Amino acid sequence: MYKPGLHLIASLQCSNLNYLEKADYLKTVIDQQITFHQLQNLGEVYHQFDPGGFTAIVCLSESHLSAHSWPEHQLLNIDIYLSNFQRVNDGVVRSIFNSIVEKLEATILHQQEIVR
Amino acid sequence: MYKPGLHLIASLQCSNLNYLEKADYLKTVIDQQITFHQLQNLGEVYHQFDPGGFTAIVCLSESHLSAHSWPEHQLLNIDIYLSNFQRVNDGVVRSIFNSIVEKLEATILHQQEIVR
Repeated sequence: MYKPGLHLIASLQCSNLNYLEKADYLKTVIDQQITFHQLQNLGEVYHQFDPGGFTAIVCLSESHLSAHSWPEHQLLNIDIYLSNFQRVNDGVVRSIFNSIVEKLEATILHQQEIVR
Repeated sequence: MYKPGLHLIASLQCSNLNYLEKADYLKTVIDQQITFHQLQNLGEVYHQFDPGGFTAIVCLSESHLSAHSWPEHQLLNIDIYLSNFQRVNDGVVRSIFNSIVEKLEATILHQQEIVR
């Protein structure tokens, strides 16, 4: 069975609600990471909920990245899935995740890697 | 720790390459499922690769749905993640998954549920 890449799934606790109520800051972090790691953004959807919270999905040529926030629970759920079609991206998956955790000053509640 | 919903992750083998080379048919199935289960599509990205294969992500008010195909490996990777904010959607997640498997005449290579 062919397994194209690494999918990292995580739940983060983030006490700074500015990072969870609106997607602006996380979008900046994600965009920086996409540029830094020379990934290709094929399209994205960022949706803002009222009064706070967002859902974000970024379609990459290497697979996808998603984020869903629940500020009322200080919760951010993250998916980073990159295929290894043109290069091995396992380290990039972990690097992006670590950057998000660091930049959002978040605590990891749950972290899981699936090779798929 | 608050766990908003159920995330179903799967790898499918699909021998009918018409379903994996272009997203048209899967998009029809997904759209039907979204309508049938009264989910809300907030935006989507479908990207076609050359010569064949696609990546698709649908942003839902209930979280997201993604699909990545590798026709050269008869492989389709599926994610269905629905939160239980307004109603319990665990059964809907499984129902959508079963419909995709059935409609694509696929074999399940890997299936995993994560409550998150």
